[in-house]
Amino acid sequence: MSVPVCVLGLGLIGGSVLRAATAAGRETWGYNRSGVAAADGFAVSSDLAATLRRAAAEEALVLIAVPMTAVEPVLAAVAEHAPGCALTDAVSVKVAVAQGVARHGLSARYVGGHPMAGTSQSGWAASEAGLFRDAAWVVAADDGLDVGVWQLVAQLALDCHAHVVPAAAAEHDAAVAKISHLPHVLAAVLAAVGGDGGELALSLAAGSFRDGTRVAATRPELVRAMCEANDAALLEAIDDAAARLSAARESLRSNSSVADVIDEGYRARVRLDALVRHSITGVDFASAEVMARLREAGRAGGALRIL
Amino acid sequence: MSVPVCVLGLGLIGGSVLRAATAAGRETWGYNRSGVAAADGFAVSSDLAATLRRAAAEEALVLIAVPMTAVEPVLAAVAEHAPGCALTDAVSVKVAVAQGVARHGLSARYVGGHPMAGTSQSGWAASEAGLFRDAAWVVAADDGLDVGVWQLVAQLALDCHAHVVPAAAAEHDAAVAKISHLPHVLAAVLAAVGGDGGELALSLAAGSFRDGTRVAATRPELVRAMCEANDAALLEAIDDAAARLSAARESLRSNSSVADVIDEGYRARVRLDALVRHSITGVDFASAEVMARLREAGRAGGALRIL
Repeated sequence: MSVPVCVLGLGLIGGSVLRAATAAGRETWGYNRSGVAAADGFAVSSDLAATLRRAAAEEALVLIAVPMTAVEPVLAAVAEHAPGCALTDAVSVKVAVAQGVARHGLSARYVGGHPMAGTSQSGWAASEAGLFRDAAWVVAADDGLDVGVWQLVAQLALDCHAHVVPAAAAEHDAAVAKISHLPHVLAAVLAAVGGDGGELALSLAAGSFRDGTRVAATRPELVRAMCEANDAALLEAIDDAAARLSAARESLRSNSSVADVIDEGYRARVRLDALVRHSITGVDFASAEVMARLREAGRAGGALRIL
Repeated sequence: MSVPVCVLGLGLIGGSVLRAATAAGRETWGYNRSGVAAADGFAVSSDLAATLRRAAAEEALVLIAVPMTAVEPVLAAVAEHAPGCALTDAVSVKVAVAQGVARHGLSARYVGGHPMAGTSQSGWAASEAGLFRDAAWVVAADDGLDVGVWQLVAQLALDCHAHVVPAAAAEHDAAVAKISHLPHVLAAVLAAVGGDGGELALSLAAGSFRDGTRVAATRPELVRAMCEANDAALLEAIDDAAARLSAARESLRSNSSVADVIDEGYRARVRLDALVRHSITGVDFASAEVMARLREAGRAGGALRIL
């Protein structure tokens, strides 16, 4: 399964994949508008068409690692120059990318992915081969996906020392809305309410406020891009949060009690701390049910560590 | 201003005040239901009436450091045995305690306080003389308070190595609702929404979710007691948060944008990180306006470090 790897976009994520796959002994090359990574000895071009023609000739796995807002023209180029290649991506939302892929007639050889690694820095200069070590790399597991391509994508994730979490595209988007995008919105809300209290309130702020607002210090344009790309799922997560907040308010107003919300939050946090990610083993990739089995295993908190 | 200090209730906060005031060379004694602290060489009794009669005889400053739910009978005992003593407290809400003090006819010699130190542990065993070092100790600064008692309370805080933040009782309650109680409610809401996402979501949770839910791991009964004692101010803080969350939802739904909430949260968090707590100096305690001046200074983020 060691097909060559062609990486389109060499920022923090794409650059780190290029480095990690190269370090794992894979044949690699990449495309970046500036070609800057070539100076570090990697096979990098700023000619997207030529990069993709090589991918078609060598039957490479193509990884799209550009921001969501730049995916569309890259898909058009893939459709023109390498429509038969196995295709994946590293974008932080999965349903919207899959829809774009479908519009370009590329669904047959596409399996989406999302390596969940840090984003506090950005760009090729911040990339490193070890970025994905022990990180989760979600690989889409919807019915109808090409099982051969699925294994190519999973092997790339494993070669980058990530573990593979299988999930339906929509399940992925709903999950990251809850555990990655909503936290940024709530941190911003909390920071703003604290700010409403003026210097007095801010000067009394201690651990609970500092922890709860830490990610509000992230560069706003990064947070916006991440949240807005997943707007449908984030809306549902916000609705869930708003309903819980409203119930807490009503209980406090009518019964002077916050027992329900505090108890439920405590139980969920205890579950998080107790979580053990078990390994998914013995997958039968020849089975017609393989995607459903993978989804179930991911839903139960499992991950593939070998293929 | 080194009058003796009589501490009623010797849990984490009261016990730490007894230790810190003793270490500062103050004459101290205390009351606790169990009298347990006596075993550590402190002058501690489980006879509340006798403890208060000594306070009356020696003109001590009396500090009430029992939980909010136990304040009422202690006030009744103070009114019976030491009604003329300077009186303060260490309870985490200020308006409700002041109302209880008024009902017992003790307002003339009462100035409320709130030493803002950690509460992750509790009880005499967890108390330590250094608990308040570099912590904020709010001292109520409402019009009509006894300026002499105010200085006794402030000196006790300074002897415990805290800095004194002056604030009106209602301003204090509103501020701690925003920066201490709302963070617990939002952490619980976020944890519960994450829990709704099942093992898949929890297994993908990274830094933003872990930070945002950290205080949801606090013992629920402690969080409930703290939040419910400040229910009126917390209701307003929740309303503020709910309105902001609702505006973010509407902006995301209609414009696919979270710019406003993210930008405002970012600005507030930057203010927090840039905050410098300036020292309040040159206070004229003989002025008729002294409480107003102190409130203004506290509102601007200042603190007294010497008296």
